[in-house]
Amino acid sequence: MTTLAKAGLADVVATSSAICYLDGASGVLAYCGCDIHDLARHSTFEEVCFLLWQRRLPSRAELGDLQSQLAAARPLPEPIIRLMRSLPPGNSMDALRTLTSALAHYDPDTADNSSPANARKATRLTAQIASLVAAIGRINAGAAPIQPDPALSHAANFLYMLTGERPDSLAAHAFDIALILHADHELNASTFAARVTAATLSDIHSAIVAAIGALKGPLHGGANADVMRLLLDIGAGAAPEKAEEAVRAKLARKEKIPGFGHRVYTTEDPRATHLREMSRELGRRSGQPAWFEMSQRIEALMKAEKKLNPNVDFYSASTYYALGIAIDLFTPIFAVSRISGWTAHVLEQLAHNRLIRPRADYVGPEYPQRYVPLEAR
Amino acid sequence: MTTLAKAGLADVVATSSAICYLDGASGVLAYCGCDIHDLARHSTFEEVCFLLWQRRLPSRAELGDLQSQLAAARPLPEPIIRLMRSLPPGNSMDALRTLTSALAHYDPDTADNSSPANARKATRLTAQIASLVAAIGRINAGAAPIQPDPALSHAANFLYMLTGERPDSLAAHAFDIALILHADHELNASTFAARVTAATLSDIHSAIVAAIGALKGPLHGGANADVMRLLLDIGAGAAPEKAEEAVRAKLARKEKIPGFGHRVYTTEDPRATHLREMSRELGRRSGQPAWFEMSQRIEALMKAEKKLNPNVDFYSASTYYALGIAIDLFTPIFAVSRISGWTAHVLEQLAHNRLIRPRADYVGPEYPQRYVPLEAR
Repeated sequence: MTTLAKAGLADVVATSSAICYLDGASGVLAYCGCDIHDLARHSTFEEVCFLLWQRRLPSRAELGDLQSQLAAARPLPEPIIRLMRSLPPGNSMDALRTLTSALAHYDPDTADNSSPANARKATRLTAQIASLVAAIGRINAGAAPIQPDPALSHAANFLYMLTGERPDSLAAHAFDIALILHADHELNASTFAARVTAATLSDIHSAIVAAIGALKGPLHGGANADVMRLLLDIGAGAAPEKAEEAVRAKLARKEKIPGFGHRVYTTEDPRATHLREMSRELGRRSGQPAWFEMSQRIEALMKAEKKLNPNVDFYSASTYYALGIAIDLFTPIFAVSRISGWTAHVLEQLAHNRLIRPRADYVGPEYPQRYVPLEAR
Repeated sequence: MTTLAKAGLADVVATSSAICYLDGASGVLAYCGCDIHDLARHSTFEEVCFLLWQRRLPSRAELGDLQSQLAAARPLPEPIIRLMRSLPPGNSMDALRTLTSALAHYDPDTADNSSPANARKATRLTAQIASLVAAIGRINAGAAPIQPDPALSHAANFLYMLTGERPDSLAAHAFDIALILHADHELNASTFAARVTAATLSDIHSAIVAAIGALKGPLHGGANADVMRLLLDIGAGAAPEKAEEAVRAKLARKEKIPGFGHRVYTTEDPRATHLREMSRELGRRSGQPAWFEMSQRIEALMKAEKKLNPNVDFYSASTYYALGIAIDLFTPIFAVSRISGWTAHVLEQLAHNRLIRPRADYVGPEYPQRYVPLEAR
């Protein structure tokens, strides 16, 4: 007996999970029961990592331990830096995928798929992906990678490794919040790809590499870069109405507007609430309020015309841009945060594993086709 | 309204597909309507590639074109060989994953995700994965990679690039049949991982890298290597009854016996029928009939004790071993064949795309948890 699912497994409950509570109709997002608004206001990314992995917030001592482990894991193996330098210029997500796969070859636990080894690999990968993305950004910009500073938080160290300057507290705090907001989102496509991969009892690096490949797509993480390209096409110097004109023209051509709509949320994405505020503040501070203003107009137009709400990608675009981050890094930065959720889901999958293997409804040439030999075709 | 699926999406129809017809109760496997027994007896791997990609068998001219395209795509970019040499010794599936990801950086169509470019990339990847696996095998054995011979078939060229000797027609034909048998199997876990990844509109290399990661797992492609390790543990010189003793002991310890049981087949896996015959013939020819004899005893025992049939992995182990292939290459060789099905499914997914994004049933700490500040924890 087979069950016919809706296209894209929409609304199909594929597994139980203790990680992410998501109520799309009420706009609620919570990690292990903790509301995303509380976490964004009071927590740090390191606390959220502990929460996702352990299902509770850490004590001060536990947080200190995790911070030390993450900081210790930040330096990249030398062959990884060499490989990074040898790759031809191109898409940063391709580089992140190849380099994360290569990290497996230098991981001290690579052949150990026990649960303690996987927990160590989850921590290590969370630190390493941040270092990889920062170093990719440096090399893209023609600069040399920078060694991590163990005294800095995960968010501040990333910005330091990317820009070469220790960020001020506003920038570090804004980036920390962005990391918290992107950390997990239940069975989004990249997390699901990671779980499908892990469920064959393959290793955690394979699962994360699958997730990175899925995140690259414009229907997933790739949208934040597309949002910024749309804003830049309109231009910072343009009158704000130009933004509406540009979007109306795209809608008339039946083109998709990046950063709007979500498979799960039917109301405001609670992450957008915080990112909108950060986009406003950081835009003002950087002396480029135009991107936020344009974004607001596009949001209002999309609500009126299409009844679509901005998703997490829409205001993260102008937020990252105001932080001085190159557009090609927007999607890799999504991975810098989501690695925490990906690894949490992989560990959970392995703890209660079952191979993920659905069926297809065959709609091809009728069976059996008479076999016609090559000579007679 | 959500639909609760069985664990692992068992029996859930996740999509329609025109590629693979699979009747697990009757033991039928067909590619685009063509029965696997006809294909194994009369066809070649190149014809099967055309069939999977075009949904019909090729004419003589079309087959000639495809053979030329595959042969032309066999040589690996020089930086890929350099990267291969620089990787530390380790799991060959890790190497295959990293190197396939790296191929994207050197693909002339890498940034072009149009449908003609994706078809070119599918052909190219099918040729390149064979070259990669052969070269990995050479380097693992301390030998230098060998340039492809464009005059040889896909199967014969692979064996030539791996061993340095042009295979005789029995070996080439046996390997060709093995490639045909492994080419596609509907929504198996690696193919599903590829489709989940492709459905974000990410690129074909990302999707294939996800599939390779999933195939690595012992619940999927990794089982064929585990079968051979089991046989070797028993030992070629052991009395055949030793095989039964070893398996009985494992069953008593509640250990899984690799190569048995399948999520879909409840009767004999039609691929096992051919692989059993090949294992017998090649074992006799190589002067090592013991592996086949042991395998037969294990098969009979598992049928009697557990009512489980051998799957595709069980007799492919002794078949590959009799062809002189190193065990660490058994799972990569699965990829040499399955790349044809993976790419067919990715192209089909992109032609009728919908993001694959199921839901999870939240079973974690109750929402909302009261937020306790760090100082008070």
